[in-house]
Formats: sequence, C-alpha cells, structure tokens
Amino acid sequence: MADGLNMSRRIRRTPYTDRVEIAGVKGFSVVNHMLLPKAYSRSVEEDYWHLREHVQVWDVSCQRQVQIQGKDAAELVQLMTPRNLTNAIVGNCLYVPLTDVAGGLINDPVLLKLSDDKYWLSIADSDVLLWAEGLALGKGLNVQLSEPDVSPLAIQGPKADDLMASIFGESIRKIGFFEFSWVFFKGTRQLIARSGYSRQGGFEIYLEGAHLGGELWDTVLEAGQQYNIAPGCPNLIERIEGGLLSYGNEMTRANNPLEIGLEKYCSLDGTVNYIGRKAIENIAQKGPKRKIYGVLFDSPACPTCSKPWVVKHGEVAVGQITSAVFSPRLEKNVGVGLVEKGYWTAGLEVSVTLPDGQIHRGQLSNLPFA
Amino acid sequence: MADGLNMSRRIRRTPYTDRVEIAGVKGFSVVNHMLLPKAYSRSVEEDYWHLREHVQVWDVSCQRQVQIQGKDAAELVQLMTPRNLTNAIVGNCLYVPLTDVAGGLINDPVLLKLSDDKYWLSIADSDVLLWAEGLALGKGLNVQLSEPDVSPLAIQGPKADDLMASIFGESIRKIGFFEFSWVFFKGTRQLIARSGYSRQGGFEIYLEGAHLGGELWDTVLEAGQQYNIAPGCPNLIERIEGGLLSYGNEMTRANNPLEIGLEKYCSLDGTVNYIGRKAIENIAQKGPKRKIYGVLFDSPACPTCSKPWVVKHGEVAVGQITSAVFSPRLEKNVGVGLVEKGYWTAGLEVSVTLPDGQIHRGQLSNLPFA
Repeated sequence: MADGLNMSRRIRRTPYTDRVEIAGVKGFSVVNHMLLPKAYSRSVEEDYWHLREHVQVWDVSCQRQVQIQGKDAAELVQLMTPRNLTNAIVGNCLYVPLTDVAGGLINDPVLLKLSDDKYWLSIADSDVLLWAEGLALGKGLNVQLSEPDVSPLAIQGPKADDLMASIFGESIRKIGFFEFSWVFFKGTRQLIARSGYSRQGGFEIYLEGAHLGGELWDTVLEAGQQYNIAPGCPNLIERIEGGLLSYGNEMTRANNPLEIGLEKYCSLDGTVNYIGRKAIENIAQKGPKRKIYGVLFDSPACPTCSKPWVVKHGEVAVGQITSAVFSPRLEKNVGVGLVEKGYWTAGLEVSVTLPDGQIHRGQLSNLPFA
Repeated sequence: MADGLNMSRRIRRTPYTDRVEIAGVKGFSVVNHMLLPKAYSRSVEEDYWHLREHVQVWDVSCQRQVQIQGKDAAELVQLMTPRNLTNAIVGNCLYVPLTDVAGGLINDPVLLKLSDDKYWLSIADSDVLLWAEGLALGKGLNVQLSEPDVSPLAIQGPKADDLMASIFGESIRKIGFFEFSWVFFKGTRQLIARSGYSRQGGFEIYLEGAHLGGELWDTVLEAGQQYNIAPGCPNLIERIEGGLLSYGNEMTRANNPLEIGLEKYCSLDGTVNYIGRKAIENIAQKGPKRKIYGVLFDSPACPTCSKPWVVKHGEVAVGQITSAVFSPRLEKNVGVGLVEKGYWTAGLEVSVTLPDGQIHRGQLSNLPFA
C-alpha cells in the first residue's frame, strides 16, 4: 500500500510532525503541499476498532485555512459556493461545496464564520487561496486573503468529550455538532469545533500558532492516557462505511455537487447568486446523470484503489469505484463511487474489475453502509 | 530519506506509472496532485554519475499544462508574469515567474506559445489553473482554460540527442535550447522541446494522449539500450550543483523574483502591465533584501532538508538552506538558499546548523557551483 515518499521542504511539515515521528508514523499522504500522517504501527483494521471504542489524535494540519477578511468578505464567500449563506451564524461550521462556472467541484471545505467580515475555509486538497485571490483581484473586491498560521488537530472517537472536558473544562460538552467555540491554551485563545472526518464524534482544535504544536500534542496525549488514546488518522474503513466522501477521490472538477449527493447544499431557487449557478440549475432541472453509491463486493484481498475500477451490471459498465477497503465488521469489501442513472437500486447485482483483471461479484448499497 | 506514501486516486497516477513501477521505482514525490518518481534502485549518487555520462528517461507528467486559449489569452498570460512577452514567438519556451499583487511567487512555469491565441504554462507545484480561472472570471476575459491531457516525458543527459534522433529523425538536432518543434509518434503529432530540469542537455516530449504513455516509454527505453539508458528523475545533486531552483523549496509566496535571481525575467521599465508590477518596481528600486547563494559545507552525512536550516556568519543568522545534498564530485555538501544583504560574498565563512543541532563549517558559493 505504501511506496516511498521522498521528503523536501515543498512537502511541508506541520507543527506536529516532530511528535508524529516520535509516535512512529509509517506512512503519509500529501494534501495541500503538506504532510498528512496516514499510518502508524498498527493496521488499518486495528486503528478502525480503536477509533470506534476509544479516542485518537490526528494531525490534520493539511486542512489549511483560507482566511477571507474585509468589507467584501461575505460577498466573495457567497460567490464561491452554491450554499445559501444568508443566515450563516458566527459559531457555526458549514459544509460548503465550491463550484466553477460549469458547476464542477473545486473543493469541499468547511466554512467557519468568525465575524461578519472574517471567514475561514478549512479546505480539502486544492489551492483555494489562489482561486479566491484570482476572483477577488479580477472583480476588484475589498478583501484580504491569506493562509493563516492555523493547524487543526483532530480528537476523534467516543471518548473525545471526556478527554476534551478533562483538558478544557466541562463547557466543551455544550458545543453542538458543527458548531465552534473557544478555549484557552497556554495563555492563548483557540478555536475548537465539534467536527472531524469520522462518524465517531469528536473535535477539531484549530491551533493558531505553530510554536504551540508540540505542547498541544503532548497535553492531549498525556491527558488521553486514561482514555486509551492513540495517534491515528482518517480511517479508510470507517470513512467509507460512514459514507464520508473525499475530494480528489470521489469528486473532482469533473463532478458537480448534485451527483455527489450535495443537493441540500445547493441553492436552486435563485435566492443567491454564485459561480456555477446556471450550470447547477440546469443539471437540477434535468436531474443528475450519476449518483454516489456504495458497493459491497468479495475478493480475497482488497487492493488500494489508485485509479477508478469499473463496475458492471451484466456486461454493461454502470459505474466506478474510487475508494475501497476490506471492512472487518461487514466481512466484505466496501467501495464507493458514481453509478449511472438507470441503475440506482440498492442491492443491484454488479461486478467489480480489479487492477489485476480479476472480476468479483458484489451489489450496490446505500450510503452510509448499514 | 523516504517514509511511506499512502496511495489513493487523489494522488494521481501518470500515463507512465505502470512502466515506472515495472522499472522498480522506490520513492515518489507528489507534485500537482500527481506522482513524481524520485528514486529507483540505484543511489542518488549513482544516478548522478549516470545522468552526466549517458541518458535517462524521466516521468515528469506532474509538470501539468495550464492551457489558455481564446481572444484574450495573450492578455491574461501577460497579466500573470513580470516577463515582457511582447516579442514571444511561437516555437519558443519561456521561463516565466508568476507573481501575486505583492510580488510573491505563485509559480515558475515554462510558457509555450502554441499560437497567437493558445498558450501552455508548464507548471511547478501550485494550482495555477485556479489562479488563472479566478482572474479570467473576475475580469470577464474571453478565454478557455483547461488542464489538457498532456504528460511530459523528459529525456536528459549527453546522449539525449543521439537517442532522440534515432527515434524521431535527425531534424530534432536542429531544435535550439528552449525551443520546441513537432514530431510524429504512432500517427500523432507531438510537441518536443529542448529543455528539462538538468544541466546535462536533453528534451521534453509533451505527450498528448495518456493512452500512448506506455508505448512512448517502451519506445524510448528500447531505442535507448544502445545509449545505456536508465529510468531516472530530477537529480538533487545535479540540480543543486547546477543552481536550478525548485518552487516550494527555494522559493514560495514569501519570496519575490528579484531575490531569487530572476531580475532578467522582470520588466522594470513600465513597458508592460502585470500583477505585482508596483511591488516589484519598488523592490527593484530599493534592491532586494535577500539573494540566492550556494553553501559548501562539511558534515559526516547530509540529511534531507525538509525545513530551512539556519546559516550563520559568526553569531549572526545571515540566511538559510532550503535544499542540500552531498556532492561526490565536490566532496562536500552543497546547499542552496537565501542570504541576507550585507553578506553577499562568495567564500564568506559561515556555519550551518543541522536538524540534530550539530553545527558545521562552510562557506558561501556563487551558483552554479564550480
């Protein structure tokens, strides 16, 4: 699964990388020109069970912030997403697909409204800062754009509440899902949100100040001992089972939000104006041509999906798998990807062709997997 | 040097990756969301000597093209770079730093003018397509922007001319440095340029059509047998010795082209208008605060530079090293990075502090290293 990754300054280290290395990291991915730890000494399966039962700390600094500040900040943010932000509230986290003129997905960040004229887009893997800067400059908008010194640390798993309360006090229990508040750490005020790339609950601390990274990591690890904490990372089994999609994997510029199941984040009534509105309204009118489905399938071992695998119904190619892994809980491989219109039936018998040419039987499933 | 890289579709494979794997690749980097092979079975030193004597084939598909086409294409391209493109000629390759409003470097691509209204920017590691699209949309320019299905394959080394002539005919010998022409391959017309990320001479084939990747790789490898060809990659020793800088390593958004030694690519007389002009003119007037230098230094073994190392003169921090490696030819470590004004003297005695805290003696050097 892991080949070698050759390091250089361009593949940026994070405020936690020194600690991550001490913790025995075995593999990384690269997101936003930055290291994302993806494997420690335990297997993906062991990590999966641990995540579902205990609590983990993840270095997700690669979720970089695009800071949009100034008189026209709200205007620019609304321009970038089909989601109606009219009623966005300070303290809420909002999942906001970003689209191009053709309705293609540029990114799928989480928006944090810090004040009426200051926003963070916590981004997936593409240079949204350049997109926003190009738009702002081209349109002559009055905004200041930057990548602030903010490096999220995720605390995920069922014991995350107890752990965070033990460090920051009981008030963190009151933070609602996809809401954020503030805590104090070493004399600094830090943003904490109830969010994260798992379905097991937890928080993300948007640490401002790279120099505090080591101390925050150590503090969390130490307090986490009594909760059986372990360093971890977004878990492929858990996120596929949970139907969490990944930008660059399940969706690219070639996909629109409607086929990815993001209708509810698209204003279709003309209330707000945004880039890609016409295209998305057109697609909505005709209905999307593809939809995201799960696929349950057999195979002796599930390889890594590094390019789409063809899914067939009989002899007809009806879709593709873009991420897949063996689920020890379902005792089958779970995959996720787009399926063509006309075949949107959970339970539909399909076959999956793996890179070695072997064909395996399976069936479509709704997401998340049961 | 190499940790594990966890694969996924998001880290895109190239048209040559299947062949690269068969050839025994050991390590990758990730550039523009795509795999860049960085190590095969031989050491960096063995590859270095081989590159200087023979010929290598490099998968540099990650040098993605940003295609800018349409009535306003020339206007947009000129807007993006300080380089005066008034006299740009079809058939020339032009190194064009791209700058933001503050003069910071967004990328340092090679520009290929394909016709008066069609350009390719062959980019380093940042999403220039998003930047260009933002600008074009914001300004209402009449251009079509895309990432075409073009995947460069580099043929580098002193025997590259003989090899390319044996495949594509003697006419390729007439292609001048940083010029491009066209050759025929399997019934398709393909762009070939005399360029590449080494000082050993050679070509880059801008293969259009991913389905032809395997055949092109095989054709080059087979014809290359008599020239002692080997699969290779940009060689850290050779590029540092040669003073070739790397975007993301030696230069980032925090740097302007003047301090990176790119004055000659900056129009400073107001002839052309471009983003960052005022900032760059101001910097030029005052003179840059930093300049790129080489550093020759001792140390038992040169580690990988994954964050800047401090360079001191006596007790004063005077600069940093951003890339470094042991040079078997110079029998010292060679590093490269920015040095503060007041210390721009080749031969100046300095010290380099490595990540393990050890301090080693060295001296500044002009680039390229002798």
